[in-house]
Amino acid sequence: MAKVASRPTTNRMMSIDDPREARRIIRGGEYDGHTAGIAPEYVQGNLCILPRELATDFAAFCQRNPKPCPVIGMGAPGDPALPDLGDIDIRTDVPRYRVFKDGKLTDEPADIRKYWSDDLVTFVIGCSFSFEAPMLQEGIRLQHVDRNTTVPMYRTSIDCVPAGPFRGKMVVSMRPLAPADAIRAIQITSRFPAVHGAPVHIGLPEAIGIRDIMRPDFGDAPEMKPGQLPVFWGCGVTPQVAVESARPRICITHKPGAMLITDKRNTSLAAL
Amino acid sequence: MAKVASRPTTNRMMSIDDPREARRIIRGGEYDGHTAGIAPEYVQGNLCILPRELATDFAAFCQRNPKPCPVIGMGAPGDPALPDLGDIDIRTDVPRYRVFKDGKLTDEPADIRKYWSDDLVTFVIGCSFSFEAPMLQEGIRLQHVDRNTTVPMYRTSIDCVPAGPFRGKMVVSMRPLAPADAIRAIQITSRFPAVHGAPVHIGLPEAIGIRDIMRPDFGDAPEMKPGQLPVFWGCGVTPQVAVESARPRICITHKPGAMLITDKRNTSLAAL
Repeated sequence: MAKVASRPTTNRMMSIDDPREARRIIRGGEYDGHTAGIAPEYVQGNLCILPRELATDFAAFCQRNPKPCPVIGMGAPGDPALPDLGDIDIRTDVPRYRVFKDGKLTDEPADIRKYWSDDLVTFVIGCSFSFEAPMLQEGIRLQHVDRNTTVPMYRTSIDCVPAGPFRGKMVVSMRPLAPADAIRAIQITSRFPAVHGAPVHIGLPEAIGIRDIMRPDFGDAPEMKPGQLPVFWGCGVTPQVAVESARPRICITHKPGAMLITDKRNTSLAAL
Repeated sequence: MAKVASRPTTNRMMSIDDPREARRIIRGGEYDGHTAGIAPEYVQGNLCILPRELATDFAAFCQRNPKPCPVIGMGAPGDPALPDLGDIDIRTDVPRYRVFKDGKLTDEPADIRKYWSDDLVTFVIGCSFSFEAPMLQEGIRLQHVDRNTTVPMYRTSIDCVPAGPFRGKMVVSMRPLAPADAIRAIQITSRFPAVHGAPVHIGLPEAIGIRDIMRPDFGDAPEMKPGQLPVFWGCGVTPQVAVESARPRICITHKPGAMLITDKRNTSLAAL
């Protein structure tokens, strides 16, 4: 029901600048769409909730793979609050969730109160929305924003450093840029290590195992214009791939695009 | 025994540039002095080994307090190897250890083979040696280096963000600098978020609860010259204070000054 019912509220949500107000609406079950463009000055995060016995290994996986898996918040075991990121109840404050049991998607609920237990640990992982904002502010045009599509993402041949049962290839997002913009984008995103940081690759897709740049594994196909280079950043889908391979008895993520909206300003994540 | 026996080897160690050679000597039990100046182009790390049941909380504590507690490496539970940081056996590759039981120092062994168990998780935390090197390279004089003393460190009134049983005030290190050098030092250390990053405070010690700058809580007293400002960075002693408050049944650290020497170059930690 929520999916249809929510649509009329989309435009209203898009005009909300205050993350607390956006979460209040989401918490009330009045919105389950995607969160791109809502409270645009504030950090949004990828969600990954795991059982306590896997939390140390997952923390290590993220620590070893900071480009694709930058942790911006962790909950205490069993505690749905995330006070560092705002007045958040992680059981209700994301528009739509995905519940995986033994690696299989079993539910896409609007809240996870019935799944919550004292045993669960919340991880919030940085998202490229936070580094796209300063690129746009400096006048760099981003194709997927201009076209209102989802950024193309690719499975690469780059191995993540494993930790416990977590392993897999790095997933990257790609933005086509003219060389001067690419150089500036490298400088800008280097300032944001907490949200993927500098690119992991530029220019030669085949060198990282991408056979056809026009056929991404996730998101929408790009348009490669003459004079543009593909620029690749570590992507927050990477931890989901690693979690799939670990097949935890339970794992809860956000539904792609329906992220956690936090009270942290994007600018607060700049290293300098 | 090792303490006396090691002294004649000090000068030889100081001339070693290769971290693998330095660890080989340490692993053989031939050196248990401090590691400042050994393999100076390579990252040294603070050590904190904890039981598995506390590892998630400690990872969260570090994640929430990245300025004083930047994690640069984590071991798998029970595994003494740290392949991300080099060919390391954490049980033997630090010159001297401290073993704490229920928060009390009980031993200062040269290796921890007899204490190791499948239950232990290793954390390696970045150290200011890595950001001092680029400051020195740019011609900034650091008083404690010039005087061959230990940098002064202070307990502050700044609360760390707690996680589980880990809590406490932030400990800071202080370097007196002329204003122009202080500004440049801020720029340089901002590039090194993995080793404390930018300063946490400048100029007014009393504002962060430091009553007498001449009486540090750890390290040697500074000399404050006219025209110098005190500049304060988050300090790797902070996690030790947090661990003391948590009183884990076992915790193993390095002996202050006797750090883990890794194969990672200092320059590799620069964000840009």
